[in-house]
Amino acid sequence: MEKVHVLFSGGKDSSLSAILLKKLGYEPELITVNFGILDSYRYAQETAKILALPHNVEYLDQEILEKSVDIILKDGFPSNGIQYIHKTVIELLSDKYKIIADGTRRDDRVPKLSYSEIQSIEMRKKIQYITPLMGFGHKTIRSLVNSYFIISEKESEDLLKSDYETEIRELIKLRGENPLNYFPKHIQSRVVGLKEKI
Amino acid sequence: MEKVHVLFSGGKDSSLSAILLKKLGYEPELITVNFGILDSYRYAQETAKILALPHNVEYLDQEILEKSVDIILKDGFPSNGIQYIHKTVIELLSDKYKIIADGTRRDDRVPKLSYSEIQSIEMRKKIQYITPLMGFGHKTIRSLVNSYFIISEKESEDLLKSDYETEIRELIKLRGENPLNYFPKHIQSRVVGLKEKI
Repeated sequence: MEKVHVLFSGGKDSSLSAILLKKLGYEPELITVNFGILDSYRYAQETAKILALPHNVEYLDQEILEKSVDIILKDGFPSNGIQYIHKTVIELLSDKYKIIADGTRRDDRVPKLSYSEIQSIEMRKKIQYITPLMGFGHKTIRSLVNSYFIISEKESEDLLKSDYETEIRELIKLRGENPLNYFPKHIQSRVVGLKEKI
Repeated sequence: MEKVHVLFSGGKDSSLSAILLKKLGYEPELITVNFGILDSYRYAQETAKILALPHNVEYLDQEILEKSVDIILKDGFPSNGIQYIHKTVIELLSDKYKIIADGTRRDDRVPKLSYSEIQSIEMRKKIQYITPLMGFGHKTIRSLVNSYFIISEKESEDLLKSDYETEIRELIKLRGENPLNYFPKHIQSRVVGLKEKI
Protein backbone atom coordinates (compact mmCIF):
# COMPACT_ATOMS: atom_id res chain seq x y z
CA MET A 1 0.00 0.00 0.00
CA GLU A 2 0.96 3.62 0.00
CA LYS A 3 3.51 5.46 2.08
CA VAL A 4 2.21 8.10 4.50
CA HIS A 5 4.41 10.66 6.25
CA VAL A 6 3.23 11.18 9.81
CA LEU A 7 4.26 14.24 11.82
CA PHE A 8 5.62 12.68 14.96
CA SER A 9 6.47 14.01 18.42
CA GLY A 10 6.75 10.72 20.31
CA GLY A 11 3.52 11.55 22.11
CA LYS A 12 0.46 9.33 22.30
CA ASP A 13 -1.59 11.11 19.65
CA SER A 14 0.97 11.01 16.86
CA SER A 15 1.88 7.43 17.85
CA LEU A 16 -1.77 6.35 17.74
CA SER A 17 -2.23 8.06 14.35
CA ALA A 18 0.71 6.16 12.91
CA ILE A 19 -0.53 2.83 14.28
CA LEU A 20 -4.05 3.44 12.96
CA LEU A 21 -2.70 4.17 9.48
CA LYS A 22 -0.49 1.08 9.61
CA LYS A 23 -3.47 -1.06 10.57
CA LEU A 24 -5.36 0.39 7.59
CA GLY A 25 -2.60 -0.87 5.30
CA TYR A 26 -0.45 2.24 4.87
CA GLU A 27 3.34 2.27 5.30
CA PRO A 28 3.87 5.04 7.86
CA GLU A 29 7.14 6.95 7.85
CA LEU A 30 7.51 9.14 10.93
CA ILE A 31 8.76 12.70 10.52
CA THR A 32 9.96 14.90 13.37
CA VAL A 33 10.64 18.51 12.49
CA ASN A 34 13.58 20.29 14.05
CA PHE A 35 14.62 23.94 13.96
CA GLY A 36 18.23 23.52 15.09
CA ILE A 37 17.76 24.86 18.65
CA LEU A 38 17.80 21.53 20.50
CA ASP A 39 18.32 17.93 19.45
CA SER A 40 14.94 17.14 20.99
CA TYR A 41 14.11 14.86 18.04
CA ARG A 42 16.08 12.16 19.91
CA TYR A 43 13.05 11.36 22.08
CA ALA A 44 10.87 10.81 19.02
CA GLN A 45 13.61 8.60 17.56
CA GLU A 46 13.44 6.40 20.66
CA THR A 47 9.67 6.12 20.46
CA ALA A 48 9.84 5.36 16.73
CA LYS A 49 12.09 2.40 17.58
CA ILE A 50 9.52 1.16 20.09
CA LEU A 51 6.81 1.43 17.43
CA ALA A 52 9.16 -0.30 14.95
CA LEU A 53 8.47 2.37 12.32
CA PRO A 54 10.99 4.24 10.16
CA HIS A 55 11.76 7.75 11.38
CA ASN A 56 13.35 10.82 9.83
CA VAL A 57 14.22 14.27 11.10
CA GLU A 58 13.15 17.14 8.86
CA TYR A 59 15.41 20.13 9.50
CA LEU A 60 13.52 23.34 8.84
CA ASP A 61 14.56 26.99 8.79
CA GLN A 62 15.10 28.47 12.27
CA GLU A 63 13.30 31.58 10.99
CA ILE A 64 10.00 29.72 11.37
CA LEU A 65 10.64 29.10 15.07
CA GLU A 66 11.83 32.71 15.56
CA LYS A 67 8.63 34.06 14.02
CA SER A 68 6.53 31.74 16.14
CA VAL A 69 8.26 32.97 19.29
CA ASP A 70 7.76 36.59 18.14
CA ILE A 71 4.03 35.89 17.96
CA ILE A 72 3.95 34.16 21.36
CA LEU A 73 5.90 36.92 23.16
CA LYS A 74 3.67 39.57 21.56
CA ASP A 75 0.43 37.70 22.36
CA GLY A 76 1.42 36.58 25.86
CA PHE A 77 -0.01 33.10 25.11
CA PRO A 78 1.16 30.32 22.80
CA SER A 79 -1.81 29.27 20.63
CA ASN A 80 -1.30 31.55 17.60
CA GLY A 81 2.44 30.92 17.52
CA ILE A 82 1.98 27.16 17.62
CA GLN A 83 -0.73 27.34 14.98
CA TYR A 84 1.63 29.37 12.77
CA ILE A 85 4.38 26.73 13.04
CA HIS A 86 2.01 23.86 12.34
CA LYS A 87 0.51 25.45 9.23
CA THR A 88 3.96 26.34 7.92
CA VAL A 89 5.26 22.81 8.55
CA ILE A 90 2.30 21.22 6.73
CA GLU A 91 2.83 23.61 3.79
CA LEU A 92 6.53 22.71 3.57
CA LEU A 93 6.01 18.96 3.89
CA SER A 94 3.33 19.17 1.18
CA ASP A 95 6.01 20.15 -1.31
CA LYS A 96 7.90 16.91 -0.59
CA TYR A 97 5.34 14.25 0.25
CA LYS A 98 2.12 13.02 -1.34
CA ILE A 99 0.27 11.83 1.76
CA ILE A 100 0.76 13.62 5.08
CA ALA A 101 -0.83 12.86 8.44
CA ASP A 102 -0.72 14.17 11.98
CA GLY A 103 -2.19 13.45 15.40
CA THR A 104 -4.83 16.20 15.53
CA ARG A 105 -7.81 15.01 17.58
CA ARG A 106 -11.47 16.01 17.55
CA ASP A 107 -11.11 17.82 20.88
CA ASP A 108 -7.89 19.68 20.04
CA ARG A 109 -8.12 23.41 19.53
CA VAL A 110 -4.55 24.21 18.50
CA PRO A 111 -2.74 23.33 16.38
CA LYS A 112 -5.59 22.44 14.04
CA LEU A 113 -6.17 23.29 10.39
CA SER A 114 -9.67 24.49 9.57
CA TYR A 115 -11.79 22.67 7.01
CA SER A 116 -11.12 25.34 4.39
CA GLU A 117 -7.36 25.34 5.10
CA ILE A 118 -7.34 21.56 4.56
CA GLN A 119 -9.34 21.86 1.32
CA SER A 120 -6.98 24.58 0.15
CA ILE A 121 -3.76 22.67 0.82
CA GLU A 122 -5.07 19.42 -0.66
CA MET A 123 -6.07 21.19 -3.86
CA ARG A 124 -3.12 23.57 -4.25
CA LYS A 125 -0.47 20.94 -3.49
CA LYS A 126 -2.32 17.92 -4.90
CA ILE A 127 -1.70 15.99 -1.70
CA GLN A 128 -3.76 14.04 0.79
CA TYR A 129 -3.78 15.38 4.35
CA ILE A 130 -5.08 12.88 6.90
CA THR A 131 -5.94 13.44 10.56
CA PRO A 132 -6.87 9.88 11.59
CA LEU A 133 -7.94 10.87 15.14
CA MET A 134 -10.31 13.65 14.10
CA GLY A 135 -13.40 11.50 14.62
CA PHE A 136 -12.39 10.29 18.10
CA GLY A 137 -13.17 12.03 21.39
CA HIS A 138 -10.85 12.08 24.39
CA LYS A 139 -12.53 9.11 26.12
CA THR A 140 -12.15 6.90 23.05
CA ILE A 141 -8.55 7.99 22.51
CA ARG A 142 -7.70 7.31 26.13
CA SER A 143 -9.05 3.79 25.86
CA LEU A 144 -7.19 3.11 22.59
CA VAL A 145 -3.96 4.55 23.98
CA ASN A 146 -4.29 2.40 27.09
CA SER A 147 -4.82 -0.71 25.03
CA TYR A 148 -1.71 -0.18 22.89
CA PHE A 149 0.86 1.89 24.75
CA ILE A 150 2.74 2.23 28.00
CA ILE A 151 3.04 5.97 28.50
CA SER A 152 5.08 8.23 30.74
CA GLU A 153 3.22 11.32 31.97
CA LYS A 154 5.07 14.28 33.39
CA GLU A 155 4.86 18.02 33.82
CA SER A 156 5.66 19.74 30.53
CA GLU A 157 8.75 21.30 32.17
CA ASP A 158 10.26 17.88 32.89
CA LEU A 159 9.16 15.66 30.05
CA LEU A 160 11.65 15.19 27.25
CA LYS A 161 9.58 15.35 24.13
CA SER A 162 10.02 16.26 20.47
CA ASP A 163 7.06 18.54 19.87
CA TYR A 164 7.11 22.17 18.74
CA GLU A 165 6.78 23.31 22.35
CA THR A 166 10.18 21.93 23.38
CA GLU A 167 12.17 24.14 21.01
CA ILE A 168 9.80 27.10 21.45
CA ARG A 169 10.39 27.03 25.23
CA GLU A 170 14.14 26.86 24.70
CA LEU A 171 14.11 29.82 22.30
CA ILE A 172 12.01 31.82 24.77
CA LYS A 173 14.67 31.07 27.41
CA LEU A 174 17.45 32.11 25.01
CA ARG A 175 15.65 35.43 24.61
CA GLY A 176 15.88 35.91 28.36
CA GLU A 177 12.24 35.23 29.17
CA ASN A 178 10.64 32.56 31.36
CA PRO A 179 8.65 30.02 29.26
CA LEU A 180 6.37 29.41 32.27
CA ASN A 181 4.98 32.91 31.75
CA TYR A 182 3.72 31.79 28.36
CA PHE A 183 3.09 28.06 28.75
CA PRO A 184 1.09 27.20 31.84
CA LYS A 185 2.25 23.92 33.41
CA HIS A 186 0.44 20.95 31.94
CA ILE A 187 0.83 17.19 31.87
CA GLN A 188 2.53 15.87 28.75
CA SER A 189 2.85 12.28 27.71
CA ARG A 190 5.30 10.16 25.78
CA VAL A 191 5.01 6.60 24.56
CA VAL A 192 7.69 4.49 26.26
CA GLY A 193 6.52 0.95 25.52
CA LEU A 194 3.95 -1.28 23.86
CA LYS A 195 1.28 -3.35 25.57
CA GLU A 196 0.71 -5.62 22.61
CA LYS A 197 2.33 -6.43 19.32
CA ILE A 198 0.96 -3.86 16.86
CA MET B 1 -11.81 -5.25 23.29
CA GLU B 2 -15.00 -3.29 23.43
CA LYS B 3 -18.15 -3.61 21.39
CA VAL B 4 -19.04 -0.70 19.11
CA HIS B 5 -22.44 -0.27 17.43
CA VAL B 6 -21.99 1.07 13.90
CA LEU B 7 -24.89 2.68 12.01
CA PHE B 8 -24.86 0.74 8.78
CA SER B 9 -26.45 1.28 5.36
CA GLY B 10 -24.42 -1.23 3.35
CA GLY B 11 -22.66 1.67 1.61
CA LYS B 12 -18.92 2.15 1.39
CA ASP B 13 -18.61 4.74 4.15
CA SER B 14 -20.36 2.81 6.90
CA SER B 15 -18.58 -0.38 5.74
CA LEU B 16 -15.17 1.33 5.88
CA SER B 17 -15.96 2.74 9.33
CA ALA B 18 -16.78 -0.72 10.64
CA ILE B 19 -13.61 -2.24 9.15
CA LEU B 20 -11.43 0.55 10.56
CA LEU B 21 -12.87 0.02 14.05
CA LYS B 22 -12.35 -3.74 13.74
CA LYS B 23 -8.73 -3.20 12.75
CA LEU B 24 -8.30 -0.99 15.82
CA GLY B 25 -9.42 -3.88 18.00
CA TYR B 26 -13.11 -3.12 18.54
CA GLU B 27 -15.89 -5.67 18.03
CA PRO B 28 -18.22 -3.92 15.59
CA GLU B 29 -21.90 -4.76 15.61
CA LEU B 30 -23.73 -3.30 12.62
CA ILE B 31 -27.07 -1.58 13.15
CA THR B 32 -29.51 -0.68 10.39
CA VAL B 33 -32.46 1.44 11.41
CA ASN B 34 -35.85 0.80 9.88
CA PHE B 35 -39.10 2.73 10.13
CA GLY B 36 -41.47 0.00 8.90
CA ILE B 37 -42.12 1.45 5.43
CA LEU B 38 -39.88 -0.91 3.42
CA ASP B 39 -37.79 -3.94 4.30
CA SER B 40 -34.81 -2.13 2.81
CA TYR B 41 -32.58 -3.36 5.66
CA ARG B 42 -32.19 -6.59 3.64
CA TYR B 43 -29.48 -4.98 1.51
CA ALA B 44 -27.46 -4.04 4.55
CA GLN B 45 -27.92 -7.58 5.87
CA GLU B 46 -26.34 -8.94 2.68
CA THR B 47 -23.39 -6.56 2.94
CA ALA B 48 -22.93 -7.39 6.62
CA LYS B 49 -22.57 -11.05 5.61
CA ILE B 50 -19.87 -10.07 3.09
CA LEU B 51 -18.04 -8.15 5.82
CA ALA B 52 -18.53 -11.11 8.18
CA LEU B 53 -19.81 -8.82 10.92
CA PRO B 54 -22.89 -9.30 13.13
CA HIS B 55 -25.89 -7.21 12.05
CA ASN B 56 -29.12 -6.13 13.69
CA VAL B 57 -32.14 -4.16 12.57
CA GLU B 58 -33.28 -1.44 14.94
CA TYR B 59 -36.99 -0.77 14.41
CA LEU B 60 -37.81 2.84 15.22
CA ASP B 61 -41.06 4.77 15.41
CA GLN B 62 -42.52 5.61 11.98
CA GLU B 63 -43.34 9.06 13.43
CA ILE B 64 -39.66 9.99 13.02
CA LEU B 65 -39.76 9.26 9.30
CA GLU B 66 -43.11 11.08 8.94
CA LYS B 67 -41.70 14.18 10.58
CA SER B 68 -38.59 14.05 8.41
CA VAL B 69 -40.78 13.88 5.28
CA ASP B 70 -42.86 16.80 6.59
CA ILE B 71 -39.66 18.85 6.82
CA ILE B 72 -38.48 17.79 3.34
CA LEU B 73 -41.81 18.55 1.64
CA LYS B 74 -42.00 21.93 3.35
CA ASP B 75 -38.35 22.83 2.54
CA GLY B 76 -38.37 21.48 -1.01
CA PHE B 77 -34.94 19.89 -0.39
CA PRO B 78 -33.83 16.98 1.80
CA SER B 79 -30.92 18.15 3.96
CA ASN B 80 -32.80 19.33 7.06
CA GLY B 81 -35.09 16.31 7.05
CA ILE B 82 -32.18 13.89 6.80
CA GLN B 83 -30.27 15.77 9.50
CA TYR B 84 -33.36 15.53 11.76
CA ILE B 85 -33.55 11.72 11.32
CA HIS B 86 -29.85 11.24 11.94
CA LYS B 87 -29.79 13.29 15.13
CA THR B 88 -32.89 11.53 16.42
CA VAL B 89 -31.41 8.09 15.63
CA ILE B 90 -28.15 8.89 17.43
CA GLU B 91 -30.11 10.13 20.45
CA LEU B 92 -32.20 6.95 20.57
CA LEU B 93 -29.26 4.58 20.10
CA SER B 94 -27.39 6.44 22.86
CA ASP B 95 -29.96 5.21 25.34
CA LYS B 96 -29.14 1.61 24.45
CA TYR B 97 -25.47 1.45 23.54
CA LYS B 98 -22.25 2.69 25.13
CA ILE B 99 -20.14 3.22 22.02
CA ILE B 100 -21.79 4.34 18.77
CA ALA B 101 -20.17 5.01 15.41
CA ASP B 102 -21.21 6.04 11.94
CA GLY B 103 -19.70 6.66 8.51
CA THR B 104 -19.67 10.48 8.54
CA ARG B 105 -16.71 11.75 6.49
CA ARG B 106 -14.74 14.99 6.63
CA ASP B 107 -16.30 16.19 3.37
CA ASP B 108 -19.91 15.31 4.25
CA ARG B 109 -22.31 18.15 4.90
CA VAL B 110 -25.43 16.25 5.93
CA PRO B 111 -26.10 14.29 7.98
CA LYS B 112 -23.37 15.49 10.31
CA LEU B 113 -23.46 16.34 13.99
CA SER B 114 -21.71 19.57 14.93
CA TYR B 115 -18.89 19.60 17.45
CA SER B 116 -21.17 20.96 20.16
CA GLU B 117 -23.90 18.43 19.39
CA ILE B 118 -21.32 15.65 19.77
CA GLN B 119 -20.02 17.09 23.05
CA SER B 120 -23.58 17.40 24.30
CA ILE B 121 -24.63 13.84 23.50
CA GLU B 122 -21.41 12.31 24.86
CA MET B 123 -21.84 14.16 28.13
CA ARG B 124 -25.62 13.84 28.59
CA LYS B 125 -25.77 10.16 27.67
CA LYS B 126 -22.33 9.14 28.99
CA ILE B 127 -21.51 7.46 25.70
CA GLN B 128 -18.72 7.55 23.15
CA TYR B 129 -19.69 8.70 19.67
CA ILE B 130 -17.07 7.87 17.03
CA THR B 131 -16.88 9.02 13.41
CA PRO B 132 -13.79 7.13 12.25
CA LEU B 133 -13.73 8.72 8.77
CA MET B 134 -13.90 12.33 9.96
CA GLY B 135 -10.19 12.90 9.39
CA PHE B 136 -10.16 11.48 5.86
CA GLY B 137 -10.84 13.42 2.65
CA HIS B 138 -12.62 12.00 -0.39
CA LYS B 139 -9.39 11.06 -2.21
CA THR B 140 -8.10 9.07 0.76
CA ILE B 141 -11.45 7.37 1.29
CA ARG B 142 -11.67 6.44 -2.39
CA SER B 143 -8.26 4.81 -2.23
CA LEU B 144 -9.09 2.90 0.98
CA VAL B 145 -12.46 1.79 -0.40
CA ASN B 146 -10.79 0.59 -3.60
CA SER B 147 -8.22 -1.39 -1.67
CA TYR B 148 -10.83 -3.23 0.44
CA PHE B 149 -14.14 -3.42 -1.37
CA ILE B 150 -15.82 -4.31 -4.63
CA ILE B 151 -18.59 -1.77 -4.98
CA SER B 152 -21.66 -1.41 -7.15
CA GLU B 153 -22.46 2.14 -8.21
CA LYS B 154 -25.88 3.08 -9.54
CA GLU B 155 -28.28 5.98 -9.81
CA SER B 156 -29.98 6.54 -6.46
CA GLU B 157 -33.33 5.61 -8.10
CA ASP B 158 -32.10 2.13 -8.99
CA LEU B 159 -29.73 1.14 -6.21
CA LEU B 160 -31.19 -1.01 -3.49
CA LYS B 161 -29.72 0.37 -0.32
CA SER B 162 -30.61 0.57 3.35
CA ASP B 163 -30.00 4.23 4.11
CA TYR B 164 -32.51 6.79 5.42
CA GLU B 165 -33.11 8.00 1.87
CA THR B 166 -34.65 4.72 0.71
CA GLU B 167 -37.57 4.86 3.13
CA ILE B 168 -37.89 8.65 2.85
CA ARG B 169 -38.34 8.35 -0.93
CA GLU B 170 -40.94 5.64 -0.47
CA LEU B 171 -42.90 7.71 2.04
CA ILE B 172 -42.81 10.72 -0.30
CA LYS B 173 -44.26 8.45 -3.02
CA LEU B 174 -46.96 7.21 -0.62
CA ARG B 175 -47.92 10.84 -0.03
CA GLY B 176 -48.52 11.19 -3.78
CA GLU B 177 -45.39 13.22 -4.55
CA ASN B 178 -42.43 12.46 -6.82
CA PRO B 179 -39.21 11.91 -4.82
CA LEU B 180 -37.16 13.15 -7.79
CA ASN B 181 -38.55 16.63 -7.11
CA TYR B 182 -36.81 16.53 -3.74
CA PHE B 183 -33.78 14.27 -4.27
CA PRO B 184 -31.80 15.14 -7.36
CA LYS B 185 -30.42 12.03 -9.09
CA HIS B 186 -27.04 11.06 -7.72
CA ILE B 187 -24.74 8.06 -7.82
CA GLN B 188 -25.03 5.78 -4.80
CA SER B 189 -22.78 2.90 -3.92
CA ARG B 190 -23.06 -0.40 -2.14
CA VAL B 191 -20.40 -2.85 -1.04
CA VAL B 192 -20.94 -6.15 -2.89
CA GLY B 193 -17.64 -7.93 -2.29
CA LEU B 194 -14.22 -7.87 -0.68
CA LYS B 195 -10.88 -7.47 -2.44
CA GLU B 196 -8.87 -8.88 0.43
CA LYS B 197 -9.44 -10.71 3.65
CA ILE B 198 -10.15 -8.01 6.22
